[in-house]
Amino acid sequence: MKMNSAAPKVSNDRFLRALSRELVDRVPIWIMRQAGRYLPEYRATRENVPFLELCKTPELAATVTVQPIDVLGFDAAILFSDILIPLEAMGLEVRFDEGKGPILPAPVRDEAGLARLRIPDPIHDLGFVGEAISIANRKLAGRVPLIGFAGAPWTVATYAVEGGSSKSFRNALGWMYSDPASFRILLDRIADTTANYLEMQVDAGVHAIQIFESWGGQLGRDTFREFALPPIRKIVNRLLPRVPVILYVNGSPQHIESMAEAGSDAVGVDWRLPLDAVRARIGNLLPLQGNLDPCCLYAPPADLEKAAIAVLERGGGVGHVFNLGHGILPDVPVASVRHLIETVHSWKP
Amino acid sequence: MKMNSAAPKVSNDRFLRALSRELVDRVPIWIMRQAGRYLPEYRATRENVPFLELCKTPELAATVTVQPIDVLGFDAAILFSDILIPLEAMGLEVRFDEGKGPILPAPVRDEAGLARLRIPDPIHDLGFVGEAISIANRKLAGRVPLIGFAGAPWTVATYAVEGGSSKSFRNALGWMYSDPASFRILLDRIADTTANYLEMQVDAGVHAIQIFESWGGQLGRDTFREFALPPIRKIVNRLLPRVPVILYVNGSPQHIESMAEAGSDAVGVDWRLPLDAVRARIGNLLPLQGNLDPCCLYAPPADLEKAAIAVLERGGGVGHVFNLGHGILPDVPVASVRHLIETVHSWKP
Repeated sequence: MKMNSAAPKVSNDRFLRALSRELVDRVPIWIMRQAGRYLPEYRATRENVPFLELCKTPELAATVTVQPIDVLGFDAAILFSDILIPLEAMGLEVRFDEGKGPILPAPVRDEAGLARLRIPDPIHDLGFVGEAISIANRKLAGRVPLIGFAGAPWTVATYAVEGGSSKSFRNALGWMYSDPASFRILLDRIADTTANYLEMQVDAGVHAIQIFESWGGQLGRDTFREFALPPIRKIVNRLLPRVPVILYVNGSPQHIESMAEAGSDAVGVDWRLPLDAVRARIGNLLPLQGNLDPCCLYAPPADLEKAAIAVLERGGGVGHVFNLGHGILPDVPVASVRHLIETVHSWKP
Repeated sequence: MKMNSAAPKVSNDRFLRALSRELVDRVPIWIMRQAGRYLPEYRATRENVPFLELCKTPELAATVTVQPIDVLGFDAAILFSDILIPLEAMGLEVRFDEGKGPILPAPVRDEAGLARLRIPDPIHDLGFVGEAISIANRKLAGRVPLIGFAGAPWTVATYAVEGGSSKSFRNALGWMYSDPASFRILLDRIADTTANYLEMQVDAGVHAIQIFESWGGQLGRDTFREFALPPIRKIVNRLLPRVPVILYVNGSPQHIESMAEAGSDAVGVDWRLPLDAVRARIGNLLPLQGNLDPCCLYAPPADLEKAAIAVLERGGGVGHVFNLGHGILPDVPVASVRHLIETVHSWKP
């Protein structure tokens, strides 16, 4: 079991054991965006605080990080934050207007724009994240591990270039295809920032790291290998000796082999391919995380149960962390999440 | 070479030959949304006509259908229309407000809503499409084949249920998972409508049909097989004896095998997997259509050329229709499209 020496010991170590392919009494479960709007306790905290302020106020970020553990009993907590936090520290204004996606009013569109991006000092510029980690670990009191995270460089770059979410990724892909050399500088600068940032999270005491390639599905197989994979590897290499790393890619079907070659301790797959099909392509040695379709949480209990058990059976019980294939949606009933956790915890590996 | 007996003979039959895996002098090329906003001639026609009116006015729809052939010289024309046209004929109001995606103010959300959907009479309710086909064929004067099309039932259903575009497809997937039986009725009703509609297009004289599963990527491999594939098969079976059918799926990597099993004459793949990787999975017998990343059209000529030739080489020259992996974007320079066509037509299979 790989254990960050800066992180507190935990009584429930199923999640860390699964990441090391050790036997577990129950398959561990956490879900992406578990500290989020579906949870009444989160909505209550969030009511009076803008999103970015919540991310940047350690006490509050720690509070919402721990809520799903207190209320629902997942096997791991994940730090409440946003993948655009380091981009702001690099010098780009990031706005989260209520009810809209993120907006970056002055996106970086070409080589000249790169001059506006600095490599932040993680302690000085992003120290609030380290503080949130310390407080969250204190609140968790050794119950479960705490996961730190960051966006993968390609995904973070799309926001920097598009100025927000995008349907076509026209600006990012246009730059990539027309001036690959300078686009690689952008990716590399984000990779350096991210590696420093995650190292700081490890120093602050997270038990594992997840890298989110949320827009990986926009890239073709070979383009991903050429542009997105090298900066991920750079980050993973910096963290690997100290802490288990999970690489999650949304839009994973064309990237399964590349994900396995990133060097991470586990791969997190979306809901698009069953886990046995993933194992058939990359073998049994690398632990998998996933991969229930988030919309199964709208099904009646018996159907949800059936779908969850199918994921468990295909995961095989060893080297499997149960998760959704993508983040939980805001209007999912809490009772469904509770039933999902019970189902996973009742299943004998 | 499969030829619709109701369609006029064509002098340039590369496209039809490629769909029959016959030898060709040049790999044929057309591109999705080739009658679209990137083309100044299209913008000029469109300036004074709302989108839906353009679709429903046969003379105008035929005019924009033929423009890319006159101006750029593709090897096939595709009827100008929209995949939501049959949904409107089924009884759902569809609005296209300028600068926004489609909006369906009264979506169908459950079994009760199904009562509002009727199976239209294709001649009576959608006859304007048949007229546009006749006029377009007259304007084409036997130069190139004309492709008719429709959306695949799952894709069309997402609009009916979500009331427009969606990020999460929460309503459609929620219905599918919580009441699969009634969701299948929705898909089946759309399939019947679509089969009738496409048969009418065949009667009117199209040379081939493309079925667009534009939101196929939202479905996991097994869910696609369970829900999306059967209604596609139903449609393909009705058309197969008369006309070649291409099944295009956006988000194809997890569906390649399912696409091959749909019974179509060719499969159209997105840009996410190279064509040789597709062939490795389903063999050489089924012709492929695709699959340059649409954003390669922003690259300088030499790089665009290199990318296009890579697609041609991986396509292998036989049983290959060159296309983009997705629709062309509105701000692509016409010069780039021209250069792409020249590149494809200079390459010797």
